[in-house]
Amino acid sequence: MKIARLGDQGQEIPVVIALDSAGVERVYDARPVTSAIDGAFLSNDGIAALRTALANESLPVLDNADGLRIGSPISRPNNVVCVGMNYAAHAAESGAEPPTSPVVFLKPNNTVSGPFDAAPIPPNSAKYDWEVELGIVVGREVSYLSDVSEAASAVAGYLIANDLSEREYQLPGAAGQWTKGKSLPKSTPLGPWFVPADAIDASNLQLQTWVNGEPRQNSNTADLIFDVPTIIHHLSQYMVLEAGDVILTGTPEGVALSGRFPYIQDGDVVEVEIAGLGRQRQEFFRAAPAAQEA
Amino acid sequence: MKIARLGDQGQEIPVVIALDSAGVERVYDARPVTSAIDGAFLSNDGIAALRTALANESLPVLDNADGLRIGSPISRPNNVVCVGMNYAAHAAESGAEPPTSPVVFLKPNNTVSGPFDAAPIPPNSAKYDWEVELGIVVGREVSYLSDVSEAASAVAGYLIANDLSEREYQLPGAAGQWTKGKSLPKSTPLGPWFVPADAIDASNLQLQTWVNGEPRQNSNTADLIFDVPTIIHHLSQYMVLEAGDVILTGTPEGVALSGRFPYIQDGDVVEVEIAGLGRQRQEFFRAAPAAQEA
Repeated sequence: MKIARLGDQGQEIPVVIALDSAGVERVYDARPVTSAIDGAFLSNDGIAALRTALANESLPVLDNADGLRIGSPISRPNNVVCVGMNYAAHAAESGAEPPTSPVVFLKPNNTVSGPFDAAPIPPNSAKYDWEVELGIVVGREVSYLSDVSEAASAVAGYLIANDLSEREYQLPGAAGQWTKGKSLPKSTPLGPWFVPADAIDASNLQLQTWVNGEPRQNSNTADLIFDVPTIIHHLSQYMVLEAGDVILTGTPEGVALSGRFPYIQDGDVVEVEIAGLGRQRQEFFRAAPAAQEA
Repeated sequence: MKIARLGDQGQEIPVVIALDSAGVERVYDARPVTSAIDGAFLSNDGIAALRTALANESLPVLDNADGLRIGSPISRPNNVVCVGMNYAAHAAESGAEPPTSPVVFLKPNNTVSGPFDAAPIPPNSAKYDWEVELGIVVGREVSYLSDVSEAASAVAGYLIANDLSEREYQLPGAAGQWTKGKSLPKSTPLGPWFVPADAIDASNLQLQTWVNGEPRQNSNTADLIFDVPTIIHHLSQYMVLEAGDVILTGTPEGVALSGRFPYIQDGDVVEVEIAGLGRQRQEFFRAAPAAQEA
């Protein structure tokens, strides 16, 4: 079962993508069960309710699904929490040692966009970069977990994200804080769908990126330095995670920051894919108006 | 005119505090005009609507206002954006040079709490610290402002904040990212009220802190390295600001990180005040359960 949201920005219809009794994949309208895929839906056992409705054949097939925009599979989260440098080879290409404790930063929740939305390159940006990442959808409130074994039950599901990052804004000056390079409009495409946690093994998923069809990133979540339960347990010591929050788990090697590839140019097409979690495709354009820096 | 929210967490009533025709300060129930003090209220000219209602004497006095908890004067913002090291003397006491460009970081929006709520010291924290700050309430969506002169119209009002910070979590390791020390539960008390932008001169406000009645911070917003319009213009180059967002502008010297004062202890009372924006008072307690770090 895949959960998605289809329709124009702000008017997305919740849907379930699943096989019908004849083994054909169908897009079902989830509105008989919920009006939104958000924290309230997740914390109220919404995924179980969707499964029951599917089994009872009480969800209608959504007409004209093919003609609809694909939105982020979850409404705007309260918080988008990110783990940085969580693959050893990416830490090395960034000029850093692998961290001994998870590196944590936040993205503004209004950076979330759909997986196929056209993506703006910031007006004065010269170093806009891709980052394919495994994303965790949090299913319940979590605070001060006493043990890593408690973490798995906090995961509602998984999705693919592109953590678009402007390296010139991110890295120099600013007391080392990455925020300015991680906050740009539409810099967090999510989806096309999310998969419930019990339906996928997140510890062994291939992640790949292509730019204009040429391969860039190609790694596996098995290489995460800090795995999903460790991340959730660790974060819970520092913040309250809530249902509907999204945690991005870090990107593997193969970004432009490595110096091996050019940064994103006007007209480039970036595709990212994680096995089982789908593929995104963004066509990039130079945003207007040009900003005049203070 | 002061705008506030009174009542239990999640059930706050919007109110206006203003002088009546006899010159006596009254607490008026704002619900005839709005059910919430949030981004939608602000972007729909809610402050002007409240002023009209006050002038028409169409807001009833709120009974039993004295008995109610004081909440954050604004509902949970989408984003809490912070500027760091924005007073030269505080940069120096933190062991840093004054920044040449605003230092920007984010706090999770679920850290917002009321100005008199009891405040938890994290279970394993030894270095929990106060930071009095001038906060900006954003009144409209702002992106890629072309000039600093466009920034003032984006300010709905001002409030006082305590940007509680755990220095051991914030500073070492973690690739220098401050997030872990800036995300703790209830670490962003806001209020008691906010004042519309045209009713206060934010460029000349005294900020003060006391711990158990002893003075700690005592500075003036005139000493901000980057002033309010500069901050808003600068942030707009890196993120979309939205109505209801809160921007914290940085803290002056006199925090425990300086080494001149002990960090916050169980039972301590921290008070912060900004002239015209009111005074907060938090009694600190050690949070349970104790966390076991991974």
